[in-house]
Amino acid sequence: MFTTHTDTLERALTAIAERAYWSAYPESPSPRIYGEHAAADGEAAFRAYLGGDFPLADQPAITGWVATEASPFGIPLDIRYPHADVDGLLAAAAAGMPAWRDAGPRTRAGVCLEILARLHAGAFELANAVHATTGQAFVMAFQAGAPHAFDRALEAIAYAYREMTRTPASATWEKPAGKGEPLRMRKTFHVVPRGVALVIGCNTFPTWNSYPGLFASLVTGNPVVVKPHPGAVLPLAITVKTAREVLADAGFDPNLVLLAPEAPGEGLAKVLAVRPEVRIIDFTGSTEFGDWLEDNARQAAVHTEKAGVNTIVVDSTADFAGMCRNIGFSLLLYSGQMCTTPQNVLVPSGGIATEDGHKSFDDVAAGIAGAVAALTRDPARGVELSGAIVNEGVLRRLEKARTLGTVLLESSDVTHPVYQNATVRTPLIVRLDADAAATYGTEWFGPISFVVATDSTGDSLRIFADTVGKKGALTASVYSTSDDVLDAMEEAALQAGVHLSVNLTGGVFVNQSAAFSDFHASGANPAANAALTDGAYVASRFRVVQSRRHA
Amino acid sequence: MFTTHTDTLERALTAIAERAYWSAYPESPSPRIYGEHAAADGEAAFRAYLGGDFPLADQPAITGWVATEASPFGIPLDIRYPHADVDGLLAAAAAGMPAWRDAGPRTRAGVCLEILARLHAGAFELANAVHATTGQAFVMAFQAGAPHAFDRALEAIAYAYREMTRTPASATWEKPAGKGEPLRMRKTFHVVPRGVALVIGCNTFPTWNSYPGLFASLVTGNPVVVKPHPGAVLPLAITVKTAREVLADAGFDPNLVLLAPEAPGEGLAKVLAVRPEVRIIDFTGSTEFGDWLEDNARQAAVHTEKAGVNTIVVDSTADFAGMCRNIGFSLLLYSGQMCTTPQNVLVPSGGIATEDGHKSFDDVAAGIAGAVAALTRDPARGVELSGAIVNEGVLRRLEKARTLGTVLLESSDVTHPVYQNATVRTPLIVRLDADAAATYGTEWFGPISFVVATDSTGDSLRIFADTVGKKGALTASVYSTSDDVLDAMEEAALQAGVHLSVNLTGGVFVNQSAAFSDFHASGANPAANAALTDGAYVASRFRVVQSRRHA
Repeated sequence: MFTTHTDTLERALTAIAERAYWSAYPESPSPRIYGEHAAADGEAAFRAYLGGDFPLADQPAITGWVATEASPFGIPLDIRYPHADVDGLLAAAAAGMPAWRDAGPRTRAGVCLEILARLHAGAFELANAVHATTGQAFVMAFQAGAPHAFDRALEAIAYAYREMTRTPASATWEKPAGKGEPLRMRKTFHVVPRGVALVIGCNTFPTWNSYPGLFASLVTGNPVVVKPHPGAVLPLAITVKTAREVLADAGFDPNLVLLAPEAPGEGLAKVLAVRPEVRIIDFTGSTEFGDWLEDNARQAAVHTEKAGVNTIVVDSTADFAGMCRNIGFSLLLYSGQMCTTPQNVLVPSGGIATEDGHKSFDDVAAGIAGAVAALTRDPARGVELSGAIVNEGVLRRLEKARTLGTVLLESSDVTHPVYQNATVRTPLIVRLDADAAATYGTEWFGPISFVVATDSTGDSLRIFADTVGKKGALTASVYSTSDDVLDAMEEAALQAGVHLSVNLTGGVFVNQSAAFSDFHASGANPAANAALTDGAYVASRFRVVQSRRHA
Repeated sequence: MFTTHTDTLERALTAIAERAYWSAYPESPSPRIYGEHAAADGEAAFRAYLGGDFPLADQPAITGWVATEASPFGIPLDIRYPHADVDGLLAAAAAGMPAWRDAGPRTRAGVCLEILARLHAGAFELANAVHATTGQAFVMAFQAGAPHAFDRALEAIAYAYREMTRTPASATWEKPAGKGEPLRMRKTFHVVPRGVALVIGCNTFPTWNSYPGLFASLVTGNPVVVKPHPGAVLPLAITVKTAREVLADAGFDPNLVLLAPEAPGEGLAKVLAVRPEVRIIDFTGSTEFGDWLEDNARQAAVHTEKAGVNTIVVDSTADFAGMCRNIGFSLLLYSGQMCTTPQNVLVPSGGIATEDGHKSFDDVAAGIAGAVAALTRDPARGVELSGAIVNEGVLRRLEKARTLGTVLLESSDVTHPVYQNATVRTPLIVRLDADAAATYGTEWFGPISFVVATDSTGDSLRIFADTVGKKGALTASVYSTSDDVLDAMEEAALQAGVHLSVNLTGGVFVNQSAAFSDFHASGANPAANAALTDGAYVASRFRVVQSRRHA
């Protein structure tokens, strides 16, 4: 399998060193690329799972079956997944570890790349599963749920492969000894896994956010237990099933990858996370649970991506309409349910300079609100960007946010043109004053954003530094025609440890990060303790243990 | 400075990729290498410090002066070091960080290599300081305290430099957009330090154990506060003084490196370790304090090297005398006060096969004890290997260990031929049964070792796995002529996560690890959570923060 995928791996290794544009898996769901029948076949494969027992009956230690998913589009799912005894599950996961360790980096990379290749062959099946469980519109579910997730997985495999192969498998050491015979030793360097890895998936991006940890742990020799979010099990069930098939085909124990779905309210992640066998954890989700994991799962290397307060600083622009369109699109995309969606737009209360002269604060706020309104005017087109609301919590938050300040753009209930039972809401935009830090200083996950009136751009920078310093952020953005302001914002972003996008007015959006080029999260602020993907993300997933003897 | 040292860095980068023999700093203190006057000049420089205020009066926030050192050789030291206000010290450390960050990896590497070059020019001065404070015999103090420490520092710099430069400083991203103009973005990738780094030194290897963390943190952009062990301040004071001079010469804030000596009983490490400004900690010392740091300094990336139970499994040998000599030398070297010194020698009670036929358990025990006795028979030669006892704790432990089992070799009090007030003891060897795990299962730091009678080699392997699994180890060693036993021991070492030396009978000793080739500690067992040096050791000392804009 390594030989089959060598070119892909080599190209990925080049890409992470260059960080220019590259992608291994086409993002367009076009039949010209994926084949005439791919879309229909994928949908049929997805539909075949509905209302049945998911084909993972070969998993060990099954004690029953659970069904917990509710589609934001109202698609009836009712899929049952095997629930396991924790002791049996972890014992089964660990059993195949020595053989998987001894297989070495090349063989493991080959197996992982073959898993990706098979997932790619079923991209439409996976896209349907992501669409149905997350509420993402279909094209986004396809792109973010399949090819972009595969790219992020491949990126993690490439980083891990490079890391494992920095040390040679063996070396001869020959130390001169004056006039005598040199001292000669033969040394062997083993890549040794840490132990069982736990991946805790999220509801909104079950594949994209889980794949880097899953593949980084697996390729470095660790068995992986995948605990999906109860609302988005299917995408990871398909993933686990595929991985198990490839492992078995390659002669390894399929239990090196296991699904651990939970019963409603079970809190299985907490149980698994503190087990001594679990030595690596990857988590995406709430700050509360991420902090709990960091504080309690002390036996494990814990990688978390949590909440943050993504911020846009608006100082001035040479393309007012482009700025408003770009921001509006970012707010609408997947109803603000991306961890990268901007929340706070900081605008001087005295207004800003533009190519058309001065615009007041109200002009700026109206420009952004108008851009969102324009994109949602036609519900059929709007839902292709917004998708549906992932859960009740977002609806409650939306209701509360209306009361926090002056509403600049009301959120409205939209009937989805295809799914009658879908829960769709347009974005809410609220005006706040700079002294409302108690409100805008925390994350309001969902289609909720605040345009905050600040004293000046200097005040905006101070607020940016303060909120991101306290609560973290995954993204930051600035609009300015002044080099001094851009420099000050770049320095503030470095101090806060957050990635910055500058003057986005076209077809690149602050919420999007491209694998092999953009880092996702930095690990340098409270929103995440790790980045996708850098050396630190992979380096602690294994250790090198050596032996030496006289040559 | 980078240009001056490019060749050294390039050669080091090759060495860490090949892991064959290489050293940048000659280990022989010969006048043919270091110059005719180097030894005398170095000693004179050392003597000039005695009884005075160490020349660090330029450090910030000084509130008084402290003197805490007591030489194991009885050399009168009485050197006073500046004690600082913690708030002032940390504020001063952080002040220079932005400029140091913006200088970039090349410039920082150049400065760090220049610091090493100047330390190397003063190798004899440093060696005298290490000798006087640690109790190491002079040649060992020279080698481990100067060139070998420089090699480990250079190795850490090389790893960190490679890690920082894996991501280019900038990249152009050009994504095809169908028939339209491609999307073009210019991306900048900044290496951003975590914050103030704290290095907590140990009494026995103040430079060798502190340099990797010190230089890995500094070269990645972090200011470094060095908190020396109260018993071994001078070697790190000289180091800090040199670093500050080089930083100032290069136009940077000398407060990027600061010495933080403590008053007796002050517990300054605990105060510094939990300060929010401190984001990286490197520690060598007791398991108790290492565990405390890991549990409490949660705001920092904590790297610890703690106690362990180093073990030798004796199954059979084709060179009985060589085996005994090699083990005996390892036990005597620096009076067993190396973190890598073997403690438990596991021997089947039924004896072992050798090239001379069967040897009973007592023959093996007598062989090892005899080898130590032979090396210590002439006190003048013995002390050149044993050095002196570093502190009272070792003496108390030695006294207690005599009562734990049958004494195979008594420890004796030796009058040092040069230093009348030196505290010198020969190694104690005690016989224990396999059921005395409560004794041999924990570390007895000092010239104390146990020959443990086991049921069989299989039993020895079980005991090895059990003790190292629970308490960790930095080294393991096996003697066997059976490939099956060697394979089983290699597997046990991989499971336990400890580096293994096989059939050492000549001039390589299990306690020694060679920079650029041998890893020191693995991070895979309780004796240490990090290794010197691998990617994981450097990768979390900085983050990459990017910005992007339309090209």
